Amino acid sequence: MGVYKFDKSFELFERAVKVIPGGVYGHRHPGFFVPGSYPYYVSRAEGCHFWDVDGNEYIDYMCAFGPIVLGYNYPPLEMEMDKWRKKGDAFNLPGEIMVELAEYLTGLITGADWVVFGKNGSDAVTFALQVAREYTERKKVIVAKGAYHGSHPWCTPGQGGILKEEKMYTLSFKFNDLEGLKKLVSENKKEVAAIVITPHHHPVFCDSELPSKEFLEGIEKLCKDEGIIFISDDIRDGFRLDLGGSHEYFGFKPQLIAFGKAMANGYPISACAGTEELKEAATRIYFTGTFHLSTLPMAASLTTLKELKEKKVTEHLFKMGSILAKGLIKLGEEHGQEIKITGPPPIPFMRFADDKDLFKSQLFCAEACKRGIYFHPHHNWFLSFAHTEEDIKKSLEVADVAFKIVEEEFGKK
Amino acid sequence: MGVYKFDKSFELFERAVKVIPGGVYGHRHPGFFVPGSYPYYVSRAEGCHFWDVDGNEYIDYMCAFGPIVLGYNYPPLEMEMDKWRKKGDAFNLPGEIMVELAEYLTGLITGADWVVFGKNGSDAVTFALQVAREYTERKKVIVAKGAYHGSHPWCTPGQGGILKEEKMYTLSFKFNDLEGLKKLVSENKKEVAAIVITPHHHPVFCDSELPSKEFLEGIEKLCKDEGIIFISDDIRDGFRLDLGGSHEYFGFKPQLIAFGKAMANGYPISACAGTEELKEAATRIYFTGTFHLSTLPMAASLTTLKELKEKKVTEHLFKMGSILAKGLIKLGEEHGQEIKITGPPPIPFMRFADDKDLFKSQLFCAEACKRGIYFHPHHNWFLSFAHTEEDIKKSLEVADVAFKIVEEEFGKK
Repeated sequence: MGVYKFDKSFELFERAVKVIPGGVYGHRHPGFFVPGSYPYYVSRAEGCHFWDVDGNEYIDYMCAFGPIVLGYNYPPLEMEMDKWRKKGDAFNLPGEIMVELAEYLTGLITGADWVVFGKNGSDAVTFALQVAREYTERKKVIVAKGAYHGSHPWCTPGQGGILKEEKMYTLSFKFNDLEGLKKLVSENKKEVAAIVITPHHHPVFCDSELPSKEFLEGIEKLCKDEGIIFISDDIRDGFRLDLGGSHEYFGFKPQLIAFGKAMANGYPISACAGTEELKEAATRIYFTGTFHLSTLPMAASLTTLKELKEKKVTEHLFKMGSILAKGLIKLGEEHGQEIKITGPPPIPFMRFADDKDLFKSQLFCAEACKRGIYFHPHHNWFLSFAHTEEDIKKSLEVADVAFKIVEEEFGKK
Repeated sequence: MGVYKFDKSFELFERAVKVIPGGVYGHRHPGFFVPGSYPYYVSRAEGCHFWDVDGNEYIDYMCAFGPIVLGYNYPPLEMEMDKWRKKGDAFNLPGEIMVELAEYLTGLITGADWVVFGKNGSDAVTFALQVAREYTERKKVIVAKGAYHGSHPWCTPGQGGILKEEKMYTLSFKFNDLEGLKKLVSENKKEVAAIVITPHHHPVFCDSELPSKEFLEGIEKLCKDEGIIFISDDIRDGFRLDLGGSHEYFGFKPQLIAFGKAMANGYPISACAGTEELKEAATRIYFTGTFHLSTLPMAASLTTLKELKEKKVTEHLFKMGSILAKGLIKLGEEHGQEIKITGPPPIPFMRFADDKDLFKSQLFCAEACKRGIYFHPHHNWFLSFAHTEEDIKKSLEVADVAFKIVEEEFGKK
């Protein structure tokens, strides 16, 4: 089994750093992967496969960091979109499709009475916070430590260019720690506008965590008792666990729910759904952007959501994710490595149990990548409808080789 | 000449308000036009024409609020894009096209050494401010009163859900008032990170204003003397006045320049360009979003920019804008109305000179709209490469009818 070279990627990156700060920025920066052992630029993609600029082919487990839920260039979607493209995309006004999509989503998402559309996850989650602030006339927001809610100042993990005043009302607690949360709320009596959680906790660089029943019920009661708005940031989980929203899957009742990523299989759109009582407050938020009401992503979303339903895609994602997880754990054992897979099967996070610095993960993922299997060493993975048992089988064959290299380098546990 | 009915628009709007706060939100809300005399939903568009959901056809002077610079569904662009679409759009990583577009833009835009890409104008302008804050280690930003720099908290004209702390470092002065600006800077000595202006001042509901030479030279000197970063928000003007950026057209030297709208003829992308000295600070901003690095809008931008250059599109926009302006002024005179057209010809703002409340504008635009000419009563208009002399001629014929109605209603001046 030959290993990949990334000469063209490196060459392009050298050109890039001259005209782009850092060459690539944000969560796609090479430093977030294993620099030198990953491609830096993609050429094309199909199903669950992609090809980098050096012509190397991969089985992909990142799905463009989430959006690709049916598969890249999914034929039934693209055929439908070809019809829409003839009409245009960005207009002065929305299209009928905005009303149709809003009607469909309020029917689909448990507890949603209305919806607005944006472009990025950040747009949708920030809008949700603004609605909560407008409704409650309070300023503070509580989030879980390590949770990602976007790149806007109040929540960004970045420091550069951000003022401390922009984060002064953002408080944090430990996910699943209901007592800690209660304490924080009581210390900020009548000042908390919203509690924001992701349905399951998926920080980078460490294990994912499922919410406990007590935790979710506790937040619901706390919000009700204290007049706090409960926001579910379902950008990453949304439509991979349950089409009614991940709050339906885990069984909780948020008042505002932010979606993005998987809702349109790669077309740029995000959304915030909410309950009737917050609708009037929502009309008072000036939420706008040049491309917020473009029609193609809305048509893509409606087609994607219907396809997810018809093809029972979430079932497939659970099945494939489970086969992959079981296979990796078993292979790990064979090579003397204890593997932890956390998070729900469609969005797994893999770690070596004794590998706090993630050095083993980095070696494992780098060696897999160089052999055509695209895992991420620091971030949760994503499954899609395009992943087949055959893809998983091939992936595990490569994982076997990568585990062997880890075993040689680090020994058995 | 029959007048249009909007029954389907109204019907859809009734459905919309049930599932979308306000039915439509942001700058597309019917209240921003003339409710009842404008369509609320668009069906399709081609060239400089669009059709609403009732089947009414319009000659369009809004260009999707700016992005459409070549024309809706411009065939050479869409043919090129059909090739790109086969490869995919949203990937795990950027494509080679990001490097190519960055190289092209740094060659095209006067004074630009690097560039980053986002989705909305707000993304790009906020990024610019963050770079300025990071570089200067200062907090305050000065903007012109009435200028629109996006919907993010520090600059939004909205009030709902916004904290006063989010705007506490945003100061404002009167566009073209250099003495007022100097006073503001001296009152905030060593605290101002950036001065942000749009190349020409284009507030809503009132006349546009061109920058004076002294004003621009004064800002440049002030920024240099005081260590302040000079930001040009070229989202609305960009690539309609000069392909080197509107600072090239007006003759000033900003250190950061934000682009969006016209850069990709309707494909969702924005950008911020900057000078070498700010590049390192720029790498420290965590700038990211699910769809920021999607390839299709980048390919669309490169194709659009090359076409703008090859076809000398800005010349065409100036020519068509001038013919339109002259025609409207002349027709106004014939109907006893003094018409003021302000702003550069490709981005004109029309007002009746004696009409402070804009009631005449509203009647004029409503009557034109009901006869198939889509002007905006409160916002600057946009010309595109698709506008022909024949389109302008037809538009003026309708304007004649609309002026007659204004004359009948309000009398001669």
